[in-house]
Amino acid sequence: MQVSNSKMPVAILGATGTVGQRFVQLLSNHPWFKITTLTGSSRSQGKTYRMACDWRHSSPLPQAIQDLVIQPVTPNLDAKLVFSALPTGVAKKHEPELAKAGFVVCSNSSAFRKQEDVPLVIPEINADHFRLISSQKTAQDWKGFIVTSPNCTTTGIVMALKPLADKFGIEKVFAVSMQAISGAGYPGISALDISGNIFPYIPGEEEKIEEETRILLGTISQGKKHAHELSISSQANRVDVLEGHTASISIQLKKKSSLENVYEAYQDFQVDEDIKNLPSSPNNLFILHKTPGRPQPRIDRDAESGMAVSVGQIRPCSIFDLKMTTVIHNTIRGAAGGALLNAELLVSRKLIPSDE
Amino acid sequence: MQVSNSKMPVAILGATGTVGQRFVQLLSNHPWFKITTLTGSSRSQGKTYRMACDWRHSSPLPQAIQDLVIQPVTPNLDAKLVFSALPTGVAKKHEPELAKAGFVVCSNSSAFRKQEDVPLVIPEINADHFRLISSQKTAQDWKGFIVTSPNCTTTGIVMALKPLADKFGIEKVFAVSMQAISGAGYPGISALDISGNIFPYIPGEEEKIEEETRILLGTISQGKKHAHELSISSQANRVDVLEGHTASISIQLKKKSSLENVYEAYQDFQVDEDIKNLPSSPNNLFILHKTPGRPQPRIDRDAESGMAVSVGQIRPCSIFDLKMTTVIHNTIRGAAGGALLNAELLVSRKLIPSDE
Amino acid sequence: MQVSNSKMPVAILGATGTVGQRFVQLLSNHPWFKITTLTGSSRSQGKTYRMACDWRHSSPLPQAIQDLVIQPVTPNLDAKLVFSALPTGVAKKHEPELAKAGFVVCSNSSAFRKQEDVPLVIPEINADHFRLISSQKTAQDWKGFIVTSPNCTTTGIVMALKPLADKFGIEKVFAVSMQAISGAGYPGISALDISGNIFPYIPGEEEKIEEETRILLGTISQGKKHAHELSISSQANRVDVLEGHTASISIQLKKKSSLENVYEAYQDFQVDEDIKNLPSSPNNLFILHKTPGRPQPRIDRDAESGMAVSVGQIRPCSIFDLKMTTVIHNTIRGAAGGALLNAELLVSRKLIPSDE
Amino acid sequence: MQVSNSKMPVAILGATGTVGQRFVQLLSNHPWFKITTLTGSSRSQGKTYRMACDWRHSSPLPQAIQDLVIQPVTPNLDAKLVFSALPTGVAKKHEPELAKAGFVVCSNSSAFRKQEDVPLVIPEINADHFRLISSQKTAQDWKGFIVTSPNCTTTGIVMALKPLADKFGIEKVFAVSMQAISGAGYPGISALDISGNIFPYIPGEEEKIEEETRILLGTISQGKKHAHELSISSQANRVDVLEGHTASISIQLKKKSSLENVYEAYQDFQVDEDIKNLPSSPNNLFILHKTPGRPQPRIDRDAESGMAVSVGQIRPCSIFDLKMTTVIHNTIRGAAGGALLNAELLVSRKLIPSDE
Repeated sequence: MQVSNSKMPVAILGATGTVGQRFVQLLSNHPWFKITTLTGSSRSQGKTYRMACDWRHSSPLPQAIQDLVIQPVTPNLDAKLVFSALPTGVAKKHEPELAKAGFVVCSNSSAFRKQEDVPLVIPEINADHFRLISSQKTAQDWKGFIVTSPNCTTTGIVMALKPLADKFGIEKVFAVSMQAISGAGYPGISALDISGNIFPYIPGEEEKIEEETRILLGTISQGKKHAHELSISSQANRVDVLEGHTASISIQLKKKSSLENVYEAYQDFQVDEDIKNLPSSPNNLFILHKTPGRPQPRIDRDAESGMAVSVGQIRPCSIFDLKMTTVIHNTIRGAAGGALLNAELLVSRKLIPSDE
Repeated sequence: MQVSNSKMPVAILGATGTVGQRFVQLLSNHPWFKITTLTGSSRSQGKTYRMACDWRHSSPLPQAIQDLVIQPVTPNLDAKLVFSALPTGVAKKHEPELAKAGFVVCSNSSAFRKQEDVPLVIPEINADHFRLISSQKTAQDWKGFIVTSPNCTTTGIVMALKPLADKFGIEKVFAVSMQAISGAGYPGISALDISGNIFPYIPGEEEKIEEETRILLGTISQGKKHAHELSISSQANRVDVLEGHTASISIQLKKKSSLENVYEAYQDFQVDEDIKNLPSSPNNLFILHKTPGRPQPRIDRDAESGMAVSVGQIRPCSIFDLKMTTVIHNTIRGAAGGALLNAELLVSRKLIPSDE
Repeated sequence: MQVSNSKMPVAILGATGTVGQRFVQLLSNHPWFKITTLTGSSRSQGKTYRMACDWRHSSPLPQAIQDLVIQPVTPNLDAKLVFSALPTGVAKKHEPELAKAGFVVCSNSSAFRKQEDVPLVIPEINADHFRLISSQKTAQDWKGFIVTSPNCTTTGIVMALKPLADKFGIEKVFAVSMQAISGAGYPGISALDISGNIFPYIPGEEEKIEEETRILLGTISQGKKHAHELSISSQANRVDVLEGHTASISIQLKKKSSLENVYEAYQDFQVDEDIKNLPSSPNNLFILHKTPGRPQPRIDRDAESGMAVSVGQIRPCSIFDLKMTTVIHNTIRGAAGGALLNAELLVSRKLIPSDE
Repeated sequence: MQVSNSKMPVAILGATGTVGQRFVQLLSNHPWFKITTLTGSSRSQGKTYRMACDWRHSSPLPQAIQDLVIQPVTPNLDAKLVFSALPTGVAKKHEPELAKAGFVVCSNSSAFRKQEDVPLVIPEINADHFRLISSQKTAQDWKGFIVTSPNCTTTGIVMALKPLADKFGIEKVFAVSMQAISGAGYPGISALDISGNIFPYIPGEEEKIEEETRILLGTISQGKKHAHELSISSQANRVDVLEGHTASISIQLKKKSSLENVYEAYQDFQVDEDIKNLPSSPNNLFILHKTPGRPQPRIDRDAESGMAVSVGQIRPCSIFDLKMTTVIHNTIRGAAGGALLNAELLVSRKLIPSDE
C-alpha cells in the first residue's frame, strides 16, 4: 500500500539515544516515512548526526541521515509527524507544544500515557483507543495531537494477556520481569552494577506495568479511558541481557480453560486486516513455544524483526490458572517499533490531519 | 565449644563436583570435623584429589587433602559421618546402604528429602524435625540414619518466609527465582545457553521449591512429616550470575501486618542458643536491606560467609500483602553449608551414635 | 548471475552443530545451492532436522529443511557438493571417501588444511591456490576433490594482513586473540569456565594461527603450497563474547610506511570482479575504523552480513611498525560463510566437475 | 611486629570510589593504621560515609567508619599519612599541598608517577627507589613527601618480568591486556559498552604501561630515576570481567634460558625479610601455574588476598623467547593494596617523619 506519492517527512526527537537510534534504524529505509529532522540535547545541537551520535548498530547509517544536523525541538520542525524518544521531563514540555502547533506526535515517552484523552495504543490490542484523538483535539484545542506507545515491559505482558482476556477474561496477574540493559538507555546502567549480577529495582517500572496494563486492556467511552478491572502485581529486575525483556507471569482467568484452549486462544486471535498490512506489522504476532526452555531473550527477541511477542512454557499454576514465560524486544516492539506501528496505522486510517 | 578431643572423621561423597568442592573448602579447616575420605565416580577413583579435581576456588587446598586418593562409595569408608553431594540416582542407591551400615549421612541430594521419616532440615527453621531420626532408625532398622538439607532455592525462600509464618501466618506465596549457573554443577550449563541470556527452565526445580517449602514450614508428629497448608507457586529461571540465587516473592499473610511489623518479625526472630553457637552459624541470620536495589546476588551472596539470607525491597503487593527480594548463596547455605550446619547440630545435640 | 537453471544439490555434514547450523542458515535461501541432505552423528540419524537440532537462530527454519531426515555420511549422498562441519577426526575419514566418490568437499574442518595438495583458501586472499585442485585429483586419483577454509581466528588476521603484505611486505606479526564462545561449539565451554572470566587456552589454536597464516599468504608452485616466510607468534584467549573474534595485532613491515599509506593499502586493495559478484561476497571487504574504541565484536561482527573484517586503531608500535585491532565473525566469515564463498567461487569458475 | 603502641592515624582521599572503598576495606582492621579521615567530592562532603557511599563489598563496614563524616581535602587533615585515590587532575593540586604541609602521601594516582624525584614503587621490585624521598624533600622543600604506586596493569606485568630481568635480562616485551571493569571506576564503563563485548581502548593506558614498566625496572642515581632500556609495546583492552587484569605477554631475554630455568627464576626470587613481614605482604609473591588454562582472572585474582601475581602458560615464543599469561588483582595489588604495602614499608623502614 502506497499511501501517497511522496514519503511523509518525519522528525525524531531525542535521536541520539538508545531508542532514538532505533527510530533512525527503523525509519532509514521506510516505505512511507522520510527522516527530515533529528533533534538532540544542547550538547549535540549543531553537529551532524554522525558526529553527535555513537552509532551502535551493525547496519550502516545512510549518508543522508549521517549528514543531518541535530536541531533543538521547536514548533518549526520540517516534518508532519514526530517520533518522540524524549526523556519524560522534556517530553512534558515539548510534546504539547508540538501537538498544539499541528504536529502528530507519536511518543514513546511516559509523559502523557496516563492522561485521560491521550491514547495509549498497541495497534493489535486496542487500536480503537485512537478514538480519543478527536476528544483530545477538542479538549486541548490543538491542531495536532499526541498518541503514545506503552512501556517496554508492559508491551510484552499485555500482548501475551490479550487473547486470554478476550476469550476467558482475566482476574489477576503476577508478573516478574527480567529486563535488558538497553532499557536503561546509554550510558544507563554501570557494568559494575550488572555484570554477573541482578539489579532488582527499576524506578517507577512496577507502577507503569500495573497501570498501563489496565489501560491497554481497558475501554474507551465518552472520550476517556476506563481501566480494566484486573488486579496486577509486578516486580521488575534488571539482568545482564543486552536486549529483550523476559517475564515470568501467572494468570488467573475468569473462566477456567484447558491448556489446549489457551493455545487456541493465541492461534485464533484476530488482527484487523489493515493492521496486518502495515509495513512494520509482524507476520505472526505470537510466537508460541511448546518445548520447555523457550522463549529466551537472546534467541527469541528478534523474532519477526523484533515485532512479535514470544510466549512459552504455558503450564498450570498451583495458585492461579496458568504460568508462562514471555519475551519482547524492548527497543523495537517495546519502544521505537511500537510507536512506528502506531504512526503507520494513523496514516493507514487517515487520522493524520491533511495539509490545508 | 570443643565437642571432643579429636576431630570426627568425615567422608565427602561426590567430592570433585561443584558442591563437593564446597564441602571440601568448608571442611578443610573445620574445628570439629576432619576429612578422611573423598569419593568420586569411576573416572576419578584411584587418582589423588589434586589430579581428579579441577579445584576452582582461590583458597588453596591443604596438602593433606590434595593427596587423598579418590575412593568408590562402600560401607567400609573410614569415617563416622558422610556428607553426600551425590547425584540423585546414585544417592538413592548408596545413602541407604551407608545408613544401614551405621553412618550418619548428611545429604544435599534430593533423593530422600520427601521420604516421610527422613528429616529435611534447616537448623534455624525446623531443627525439631530431627525427631524423625529415631522413627527412621526403627522403621528402617538402620544403625545410622539420613538427614537431608533442602534445595538451594527453597532454602532462601523458606528462610525469608519463616519469621512471617511464625508471627502472621502465611497463606499464599508466589516466587520467581533467578538462579546462578553454579547451581547446575560442572560442566553444567553451556555458555552458549546462558551468556547474555536467560534460560527459563530448570527441570524439577519448581516442584522442589513448592514441595520442600511446605515440608520445611510443616510439622512432625507420629514419626511423619505434615506439610504446611500454604499454597505456593514458583517459576524458576537460570541467569548469568556465578553464585547466589535471587527470588522475587509475593506473600499473602494470614494476619495483616504493617511493614514495620514485618521488619520486626525478622529482627525478633529467635534462634536457639545451641544453634547460634555452631561453628558455621552466621552471626546474623537475616541481612535486612531497607534501600531499594538490594539485595543483589553478586554483592550480597557472601554475607555472613554465605550462611545468611539477604532480604530487601519489602513493599506492599497489590494482590497479596507483601513483595520482597531475597538472595541466598546457593552452594554454601543452599547446599554444602546447609548440610554442614545440620551435621554440626547433630554433633552438638549428641544425635550421632557413639561408637560402642 | 544465475549459474544454472536449477539449483545445485548440496549436503551439509555435521549439520546440527554450531557451524552446521550456520551452514543451514546461510544455505536455506541460497540462489545457487539447495540443501538436499543433512548428516549427523548416530544420535541424530533417523530424526528430522527439527527434532535432532536445537535451532538457535531467530531466523525461522524453512519447513522443507525442518523435515529433512538426518543421514549418516556415506558416498551415496544425494548431492553434488558437500559442506563439511565435521570434527577433525571424523573429517579425516569421511572427506577423502567423498572426494574419491566424486563429491566436491568444501570443508571447514582442520583435517586437511595443511596437506600439500589441498587448497586452503579465502577467495579474496588466495583464490589462485585453487590451482592445487588438479594436482590433488591427479595425485589422489579422485573424481572429486577437497578444498578447505581456514581457522576462524586465522581468517580475520590474514584478511587484515593481506593488503599490507602485498604493498609493504610483512616480516613479523604478534597476534593475541580474544575469541568468542561460539567458536568452541555446543555445548562447548561451560558457563562456569567463562562467565565473568577469561580462559587463556584453546588447544591447538596458536599452532593453527601460525601455520595457516603462512600458508594463506604463501604461494603455489609445482602443485604444492609454499608458506610465506614471515614470523608469527600468537596467544589465544577465550572471552565471554557470543560471536566475533577480536585480535590485538602488531606488525613489522618490510618497507616502512606512513599510517596514511596503510589506510590506502586497505582502500586500494583489489578483489577480482568475479569474486566481488559472488552471492555471499561483501560489498566492502574491509570496514576501516578511524576512531579509537572500534572495532568491537558485539557491534562490528555483523558488518556486511558477517563477511567483512573490521580493522581499527591502527597506530604506531614501539617495537614493530604498526598495532591494530581486528574483528571477524567467527562462525560466518570464519567458518560456514568462508566455506560457502569458496563453493560459490568454484561454481563461478566452473571448477565443479560436470555430470557426465 | 607492632610498630608503635597506638595505631597511626591515616586519611583516605577519594574514599567513596572504587579504589577508595578498597582502601577503606583493607584499612578497616589494619594492625598499624587507623582511619581517622575520609575525603570526597563536594557532593559527598558533610555526609557520613554510610550515606555518601554505595558500599559494594560483602564484608560489613565497621560502625566507626560508617559514621565518619566526609571532609574536603585540606592541609589540616587529622592524619599523619594519607592514601590518595584522587583523580589525576585533583591529585595534581592536592598531593603537593599535603606533602608540603608535612603529610606522607601514598598515592595511587598517576599524577606524579613520572616525576623524577617521586618514587614509583612496588616494594618487592624496587624498594630502593624510596631513596628518592630525601632528594624530593630537599628539592621541593617539603616537610612531608609523595610516594606513588603504579598503574594496575603495569603492576602485574612488572611483577612477572622482574625475576627474568634480574636473572636473564630483558630486551623486548609485547603485552596485550584484558582489563577488568572495576579498573574504570564507578559508574565507569556502561554495561551497554561491555556486556558480551570487548572495548579495545583505554585512554592513556598503553603509555602508562610502557613508561612505568621501564621506570620500575630502572635504577636510581643522583636523586633521579633512570628508566630501564627495554622496549615494550602494549595494547590495552577492556573485557567483561569484574576484577582481575589478565595479560598475554611475549618476552625477549638478553640471555637465552630453558623453561626450567625460567621457573627457577620465579622460585628463587628473593624478597627482603622486612618486606615479607609486612602485614599486607603475600606469603607467595608468585603463584606459578604449570597446567594450561591458568591463570584465569575470576579464579586467580584473589590468590594471597589479592597481593600475589599469578603466572602461567610459560611456553616458547616463535619470535621472542617466551610467552606467558599473567593475572593481577587490579584494585588490590594493582591499586589500594599496592599503596598500602608502600605505606607499611615506609613505617617499617622508619621513613615516616616523626612528630617533633
